[in-house]
Amino acid sequence: MGGDTIKVVHTIRDMQSHSRRLRQDGQRIGFVPTMGYLHEGHLALMRLAQAHADAVVVSIFVNPTQFGPNEDFAAYPRDLDRDCRLAEKEGVAVVFTPEAEAFYPPNYQTYINLEALPRHLCGVSRPGHFSGVATVVAKLFHCVTPHAAVFGQKDYQQLAVIRQMVADLNMDIEIIGAPTVREPDGLAMSSRNAYLQPEQRPAALSLHRSLIQAKQAVAAGTRNVSTLITAARVEILAHPQTEVDYIEICNPVTLDSLETVTGPALMALAVKVGQTRLIDNMLLTD
Amino acid sequence: MGGDTIKVVHTIRDMQSHSRRLRQDGQRIGFVPTMGYLHEGHLALMRLAQAHADAVVVSIFVNPTQFGPNEDFAAYPRDLDRDCRLAEKEGVAVVFTPEAEAFYPPNYQTYINLEALPRHLCGVSRPGHFSGVATVVAKLFHCVTPHAAVFGQKDYQQLAVIRQMVADLNMDIEIIGAPTVREPDGLAMSSRNAYLQPEQRPAALSLHRSLIQAKQAVAAGTRNVSTLITAARVEILAHPQTEVDYIEICNPVTLDSLETVTGPALMALAVKVGQTRLIDNMLLTD
Repeated sequence: MGGDTIKVVHTIRDMQSHSRRLRQDGQRIGFVPTMGYLHEGHLALMRLAQAHADAVVVSIFVNPTQFGPNEDFAAYPRDLDRDCRLAEKEGVAVVFTPEAEAFYPPNYQTYINLEALPRHLCGVSRPGHFSGVATVVAKLFHCVTPHAAVFGQKDYQQLAVIRQMVADLNMDIEIIGAPTVREPDGLAMSSRNAYLQPEQRPAALSLHRSLIQAKQAVAAGTRNVSTLITAARVEILAHPQTEVDYIEICNPVTLDSLETVTGPALMALAVKVGQTRLIDNMLLTD
Repeated sequence: MGGDTIKVVHTIRDMQSHSRRLRQDGQRIGFVPTMGYLHEGHLALMRLAQAHADAVVVSIFVNPTQFGPNEDFAAYPRDLDRDCRLAEKEGVAVVFTPEAEAFYPPNYQTYINLEALPRHLCGVSRPGHFSGVATVVAKLFHCVTPHAAVFGQKDYQQLAVIRQMVADLNMDIEIIGAPTVREPDGLAMSSRNAYLQPEQRPAALSLHRSLIQAKQAVAAGTRNVSTLITAARVEILAHPQTEVDYIEICNPVTLDSLETVTGPALMALAVKVGQTRLIDNMLLTD
């Protein structure tokens, strides 16, 4: 293979020896873990990783342990060939696609659990989800041994969990949060947007609109959290096929709920539009 | 400091940069995690680490999260100066002694849990112990980044937990088990032996004697596990001040209890002699 051709690595051993060589050559490794079906948001993560590293590794792994029994693991969209072409165009050095059977062999039994952060937001309706996320990210980190890893701020709670795990477990890895990339109409990019029917688009856009309106309300002097949340709920439920999982305003570090916006505040929400669960978030203060 | 002088490292950052330099120099790092109060058993671990590495790091950290509320964390014997002298004499390159406050800062919340192995042996009477062990060892691994790490077979279940964690989390570290070092009279070396009064010695020796007798019984054809366990219990309880926590014969890999010795079998026991809890184990088959 030529120097420009992307390398696709399937086994843990091969990934570890490739990373060992990169490190021995003095290369700084940037890492972008994904579940594939890459979109513009992922490409932005890769560009940010390029800016922080000499060689970028992208993992593509639809991780079974972060899906609940009634969630969309089997249906989650997959297209490895297209993903590799997109990553190659971005100058990614390695795509790492481990097999689920190798990652979770018989007698697998080790999980990383956080005590506080998963009790909030998505963790409430997705029990075990963040244990699955923390565990698979730690496994991927031990395969890729990155100097820096990039995660999107769209999955804000995931980013908070990873930052906390990396600090708590003394992992020598710089965690970089990347701004949410949006469609021209404001919809946060997500592989799950592929599920949306055209007639569901206005409902999907109500997530971003309600965040913008809350931010404007705070700028105009509204401080009461329940006032802000009620306004968002009204905006979202005005659309058909919407079901609110949660709308929360919380401390951006601990994710503890706030009653009044007096300092840094994150608004985060999860809404089902038809069968598609969408999430979005925004800092209400600058 | 001269090249022969041992380096004592107190902070996580310093340990990580020291290990990074060792790796950049192409040195293979061997690691021996300890809780200090070093004895001949630890020194044997260090010698084994030397044989597998260019530079040996020994950590000395009495880890609070692996002690239960009624256990001997505060009383656990400590002597850092003596420990450093002993390690230096063995040619150890670095002693790493992190502060508990740095290892478990406020808001610390990440724990590594294994689902099956801790349900056996010491895990039954020490809930949370192996979560504390797995977590602190992962933290130490991320500080020291060893190529190989050595653990004593005396803490057999600990060794099994670490092997499983390393495999499950894809840690690129060779785990080496070291044979138990014994006093001339057969007592397995342990820092906790310092608690024993001279008149408790015969009772303490009954652990090893009962293991030897079980192994001889198996060699002579005894296969029934409850027969073997009863004989050991009688041997131990013949001594004053003894209280059996458990005596088990189990599969050496899964630690599942056996009813009959038909293949590989580990006998493991935990006995309180006065206030001192002692453990020991032996493979009954070769």
